[in-house]
Amino acid sequence: MKIAQVAPLHESVPPKLYGGTERVVHNLTEELVRKGHEVTLYASGDSTTSARLRPCCDEALRMNPECQNTVVHHVLMLERLFQDAREYDIIHFHVDYIHFPLLRRLDVAGLTTFHWRLDLPDFLPIACEFRELPVTSISFSQRRPLPQMNWVGNVYHGLPPESLRYEPKPEGYLAFLGRLSPEKGIEEAVEIAKRTRMPLKIAAKINDFERDYYEDILRPLFRHSLVEFLGEIDDSQKSGFLGNASALLFPIKWPEPFGLVMIEALACGTPVIAFPNGSVPEVLRHGVSAWIVDDVDRAVDAVGCLGMLSRRRCRAEFERRFTSEVMAENYLRIYERILSQRQQRAGGGKWTRSSKLPGNTTFSQRPH
Amino acid sequence: MKIAQVAPLHESVPPKLYGGTERVVHNLTEELVRKGHEVTLYASGDSTTSARLRPCCDEALRMNPECQNTVVHHVLMLERLFQDAREYDIIHFHVDYIHFPLLRRLDVAGLTTFHWRLDLPDFLPIACEFRELPVTSISFSQRRPLPQMNWVGNVYHGLPPESLRYEPKPEGYLAFLGRLSPEKGIEEAVEIAKRTRMPLKIAAKINDFERDYYEDILRPLFRHSLVEFLGEIDDSQKSGFLGNASALLFPIKWPEPFGLVMIEALACGTPVIAFPNGSVPEVLRHGVSAWIVDDVDRAVDAVGCLGMLSRRRCRAEFERRFTSEVMAENYLRIYERILSQRQQRAGGGKWTRSSKLPGNTTFSQRPH
Repeated sequence: MKIAQVAPLHESVPPKLYGGTERVVHNLTEELVRKGHEVTLYASGDSTTSARLRPCCDEALRMNPECQNTVVHHVLMLERLFQDAREYDIIHFHVDYIHFPLLRRLDVAGLTTFHWRLDLPDFLPIACEFRELPVTSISFSQRRPLPQMNWVGNVYHGLPPESLRYEPKPEGYLAFLGRLSPEKGIEEAVEIAKRTRMPLKIAAKINDFERDYYEDILRPLFRHSLVEFLGEIDDSQKSGFLGNASALLFPIKWPEPFGLVMIEALACGTPVIAFPNGSVPEVLRHGVSAWIVDDVDRAVDAVGCLGMLSRRRCRAEFERRFTSEVMAENYLRIYERILSQRQQRAGGGKWTRSSKLPGNTTFSQRPH
Repeated sequence: MKIAQVAPLHESVPPKLYGGTERVVHNLTEELVRKGHEVTLYASGDSTTSARLRPCCDEALRMNPECQNTVVHHVLMLERLFQDAREYDIIHFHVDYIHFPLLRRLDVAGLTTFHWRLDLPDFLPIACEFRELPVTSISFSQRRPLPQMNWVGNVYHGLPPESLRYEPKPEGYLAFLGRLSPEKGIEEAVEIAKRTRMPLKIAAKINDFERDYYEDILRPLFRHSLVEFLGEIDDSQKSGFLGNASALLFPIKWPEPFGLVMIEALACGTPVIAFPNGSVPEVLRHGVSAWIVDDVDRAVDAVGCLGMLSRRRCRAEFERRFTSEVMAENYLRIYERILSQRQQRAGGGKWTRSSKLPGNTTFSQRPH
């Protein structure tokens, strides 16, 4: 199959450091190439890929101090993509909604995966307008605010199984990996560590917009002797950081659309202690790969029960549900379904408001 | 003629307070309606217009605390516009470049006016890609960084002549009106006031991103007894504020694309003391409506020579070159030229790379 993957330009593919969407696009692209498909990747020029790269800006926009306007580069990417569109059987968009008016008017097969939360009020009018375009979610929780859209599938993220090493014997600390924002539950993570007297290692980048929060609230908390703040870590450090932890703390207070770090922990054999928001109850299995708990009190209890969770079963959960191969096979099934629906339609014309696929969900990866 | 005007959604049309682009779109729209054209305005739902309004969000995005993403609303506006596109003879875009990939692919006559500076590196690839689309500048200075585009005209902004009152006798103070940023020359304005011992009245909004600059640098400067800071003023206050001033100070240090406040001052009969950056040498006439000077020393001299500039001639400059009617007539000439070029082309098809209008500039309002 001739497939175009369209990535955001904020980070390279794969990202140098943080950047969940670009990492997933990379994993999907590599796996599709491995399966013998002809894949073209639209991404920043400093990306590294086994596919054919169509660079749409010289370097990742976050890395470019001269970049003051990110929209302009994405508009240019769409132009280049739609110039090439007839070369592809299907185009898979990972750039939200900016392509919707163009996609609706052109005779190309397109699938859009949303990578971000969909519960912000800005988004509702777009969802109501473009309800015929085929879209996929990365968790059922993510799609809940917008039932009117044409959900043709749900596909969980996946990682290459060799990218993170299974570690049977942890070193006895708790780990926190992610943005240092209140919604990620960093204060709760410190509280859990203090009350269980377990060391807590924190790996995170500090965004400019979170700098005040870090200086005012977190820096004093991080002075505690049990807490070790490592800054942002790269891929080579991740396996050791997560694999040597007794558990990943994920006490989130927001509707996480997926939460890549959960499956990264599972890949290392590390169970997760998480609050049941967003995708958490779909990605994790309480009593198998995680303790899903409602508050800090119960998280403290859960730390005492980590011995009841098998690290081997955590890794097995990862291998069964969250590898790149599982993800790619799920997407391929959706691509094929979209293409056969297009062929069946008389004339094979454009997507229209009446061309919604039958059934609300063509193919979906179910939780558990 | 059936004309669509497409405004940004950040402010209403006209804007409640600051908002140069939305104000100009309002003036143009009202004048086109007055001349008997059928005009449809795409703008925020709290806009007020004599044209038919197609609301594209409930209220101006800057006024909506729930709005976290402005791009999504502009994408939706484009969708609605292109659904209606065949109703219009011509569509006039004031929203930068976000519509370019769509416009290129659809059989509609479109004109784009750029309202912002064009010298940022992000913009160059867009200009190289979309070089056949007809565009206009708001000053020759503005277009200089991008000679490769299809400039079909230059049209200066215009105001309704009755919107600002001619004031023959000023009260003897200097005025500053605009953003409180270093590039607007606010520190230089205070310096000029102190050295000439003339009172300086300042009307300006403080943007969030300029708050630190205001607190650290400007607030101490504004404590001087000659300086009076009025905050942001509305339209009803503007005529008195500008008209009673002996001169407007405009010591800018950036490539101002147009600078609406200059012609607002002229409409009141108030001359301008300005630095020769951006559009200044095109909009103002040294020795007639302004003293165009290179630095603070010469600006101080110029304050002493204000008596040599006739306030009546300042108003006459405004009436000859910068009314809404002059602006609308200039745009109408460009619309007609675009439409007749389309008719002449065999089949009247889409814009293509080879359909650039002959001559770099079909119609342009010349400086002076």
